[in-house]
Amino acid sequence: MTYCCALRLKDGLVFVSDTRTNAGVDHISVFRKLYIFGIEGERFLTIQTSGNLATTQAVIGHLNNHLELKQEPNLYSVNTMFEMAELVGHTLKKVIADVVEDAHTHEQSNYYCSILLGGQIQGAEMQLYNIYPQGNFICATEDTPYFQIGESKYGKPILDRALIYEMPLDEAVRCCLISFDSTLRSNVSVGMPLDTVVYKKDSLHIPNGKRIYEEDPYFWKLSKQWSDTLRRGLQELPIPTDDYLE
Amino acid sequence: MTYCCALRLKDGLVFVSDTRTNAGVDHISVFRKLYIFGIEGERFLTIQTSGNLATTQAVIGHLNNHLELKQEPNLYSVNTMFEMAELVGHTLKKVIADVVEDAHTHEQSNYYCSILLGGQIQGAEMQLYNIYPQGNFICATEDTPYFQIGESKYGKPILDRALIYEMPLDEAVRCCLISFDSTLRSNVSVGMPLDTVVYKKDSLHIPNGKRIYEEDPYFWKLSKQWSDTLRRGLQELPIPTDDYLE
Repeated sequence: MTYCCALRLKDGLVFVSDTRTNAGVDHISVFRKLYIFGIEGERFLTIQTSGNLATTQAVIGHLNNHLELKQEPNLYSVNTMFEMAELVGHTLKKVIADVVEDAHTHEQSNYYCSILLGGQIQGAEMQLYNIYPQGNFICATEDTPYFQIGESKYGKPILDRALIYEMPLDEAVRCCLISFDSTLRSNVSVGMPLDTVVYKKDSLHIPNGKRIYEEDPYFWKLSKQWSDTLRRGLQELPIPTDDYLE
Repeated sequence: MTYCCALRLKDGLVFVSDTRTNAGVDHISVFRKLYIFGIEGERFLTIQTSGNLATTQAVIGHLNNHLELKQEPNLYSVNTMFEMAELVGHTLKKVIADVVEDAHTHEQSNYYCSILLGGQIQGAEMQLYNIYPQGNFICATEDTPYFQIGESKYGKPILDRALIYEMPLDEAVRCCLISFDSTLRSNVSVGMPLDTVVYKKDSLHIPNGKRIYEEDPYFWKLSKQWSDTLRRGLQELPIPTDDYLE
């Protein structure tokens, strides 16, 4: 499986993805699921993928191929983030249709993948899209400033309870990492290392991103302190009234 | 959907179930999914159910019917918790087989339900079983002191991080209620009121259990304080190193 999470907040964008893939429990590998693109000072975008690995790699392959051969439309030629979402969605839909046609099957869902696309083009607003295997998509808003794909349930409560559109980026990164830490502890199909990218609104700077390995001292400290917070928080909760224990 | 959780700890057993059922988003009802049985001073048991509502009610119906007509084996005639798990598993398997036979279909999974059975019989250890639709079952241990059925993922991280076999019952109840609060906030298919039962080891006392409604002042306070704990805990986490934000 996979867990990817992306936030579109007042001050910028935050992306975190795990890197574990599995085809059965005895076939576990590390594959990047977070891809950074951009032209410094002009546009920045990140694509995160979840689902069939061949499909996700084919989508990224086609998008890269178009860039390399300067075939239009491509990620650097489209005018708006909306057109970019359409391009990615169309590419995704076509990859799935082609593999299904070749396999002489009507069962598309084995080849499904979901994509998060976030970024900014000079002169326009930052956007974050959740693109479905059918090629259509939805857009993050102030009311719903985050999307998740893959193994999303374990890490959802902390986002639902703490995340708001106005949250500063450094706090949002911590919130996301806790969401991942919770998922990593409860589901072995999501695994380290993690890829993180933080983009500051209107900077049009292409961040390097950071890969967090198991032994990362900051992540380790975060995880340890969060465990302590929860255990202490639990003990500090009011003791149940007697009727709970009768 | 449903969320049920049961703990078998050093000092006793804790059971919590929600009560929401849905057949589509426009057909939502309140049904009890936690059933208490027992003979004061001799045996205590609780059954929690998740899945097809007709199946779960048929299982409880048959078990009650056997008790009423004093047909053997029944919940009060079996000698051990193991035999009780066999009886409940057999009843479950038969209910599913009968409905499938009558429907002239081989598709069993539409009628599936899962059951948690916990309790104690005089002179023997407390036990907690997770009974599958196939009628077989597994038993909670000191290593894995809890089971969940239904919509289990949202509420799993807090259990994985905080729950231990030695935890006092009043703290375990708080831990369970937080697990439910997290689930309630992230998934509308799990809903109030909640049914809770706490059983003290070797007491052989049949507890009344407590139903927690939306307006329950204790639960409300717990939920509020937990939100504060998480938000404050998040802010107190170490600030990401610069390389996270570049």
